[in-house]
Amino acid sequence: MTDVSGLSIGILGGTGDQGKGLARRFVLAGHTVLIGSRSAERAQQAAEPIGARGAGNAEVAAQADVVIVAVPWDGHKELLESLRSELSGKIVIDCVNPLGFDKQGAYALPVEEGSAAQQAAAVLPDSRVVAAFHHVSAVLLLDETVEKVDLDVLVLGEDREATDTVQALASVIPGVRGVYGGRLRNAHQVEAFTANLISINRRYKAHAGLRITDV
Amino acid sequence: MTDVSGLSIGILGGTGDQGKGLARRFVLAGHTVLIGSRSAERAQQAAEPIGARGAGNAEVAAQADVVIVAVPWDGHKELLESLRSELSGKIVIDCVNPLGFDKQGAYALPVEEGSAAQQAAAVLPDSRVVAAFHHVSAVLLLDETVEKVDLDVLVLGEDREATDTVQALASVIPGVRGVYGGRLRNAHQVEAFTANLISINRRYKAHAGLRITDV
Repeated sequence: MTDVSGLSIGILGGTGDQGKGLARRFVLAGHTVLIGSRSAERAQQAAEPIGARGAGNAEVAAQADVVIVAVPWDGHKELLESLRSELSGKIVIDCVNPLGFDKQGAYALPVEEGSAAQQAAAVLPDSRVVAAFHHVSAVLLLDETVEKVDLDVLVLGEDREATDTVQALASVIPGVRGVYGGRLRNAHQVEAFTANLISINRRYKAHAGLRITDV
Repeated sequence: MTDVSGLSIGILGGTGDQGKGLARRFVLAGHTVLIGSRSAERAQQAAEPIGARGAGNAEVAAQADVVIVAVPWDGHKELLESLRSELSGKIVIDCVNPLGFDKQGAYALPVEEGSAAQQAAAVLPDSRVVAAFHHVSAVLLLDETVEKVDLDVLVLGEDREATDTVQALASVIPGVRGVYGGRLRNAHQVEAFTANLISINRRYKAHAGLRITDV
């Protein structure tokens, strides 16, 4: 597996639960983690208790070796457009799920580019965009009593070296395995499947995740 | 779990590998299985070696208690329109995956109604349409050396009694578990995810399936 031990990880929108949960697990695995937010002060407040550093999104995008995009879908495109030069040449991991919610639960929103990951790839032609970490449960990542997270992280992209790196990064979280999941044109259904996991969580009172069998 | 032991199962398009594989497993579980095809003769030829009965699609739709739709996506709508009265009042299980293929592999086709299952529900307003069995590997279902199939079958629908019945039907196949997966509006990504499983199978030389964790 690709050696990722020295990589620093930036998390844009890292003050949200998903970003913070990932940040915590990467810190525990020994990585330097930079949490980004529109407000450097809020980033620092979120980062400090989990042993990460906090800064503005642009600074994080510029400094980190690998950058995870964990911002809300609303504003996703604009943020990435504003960071095009900082993210140039880097592996950018999009974990954004474009979902809507109503009284019947969650549902997938249509995305002009096909998926959040394809939108990122369109906006960032000089970055190596990979889709991953869509189904991680923020609750489990943040729970100090949960040592192992029972989950396969599906990793999608066009660039084999980049997807191999992200698979290795996923696998530093105890219990998690990074599994190649296809090209970016098949990212929509992986993002949208989060709506099904939300339905499953409601029905079974669970924090459901995926495992891929026979792999 | 719902008692499904007495239910007869019809499989439209049951001469294809997926339909034949499911037929074989339901016969092994003690169900009366009717394989349907446009040609009654071809249906009988496919049915005989696995202990099922064969007939034309309309006869199977009329006689079976529960009907599985395992036809190719091309022709899906027309077939269901032609069987509206036969399928009225019945549980209709759609397992069709609208996929395209090119030299880069499989990808999801756009569906006007959102998904094959939603198309079935639109065409069959008097049936109880459930989406399930999208990810079963025909190879594993047909392999006589495979006793247990390591897979959760996601079952989607609006009608709790119908989804409970289909979950119970899935669970008669050794190793398989039926798991509720949401409403039909979230069926597209489950169908489309078959493209990702095909990518995974190529990369890992596997017959990949899904398991849902924490359920």
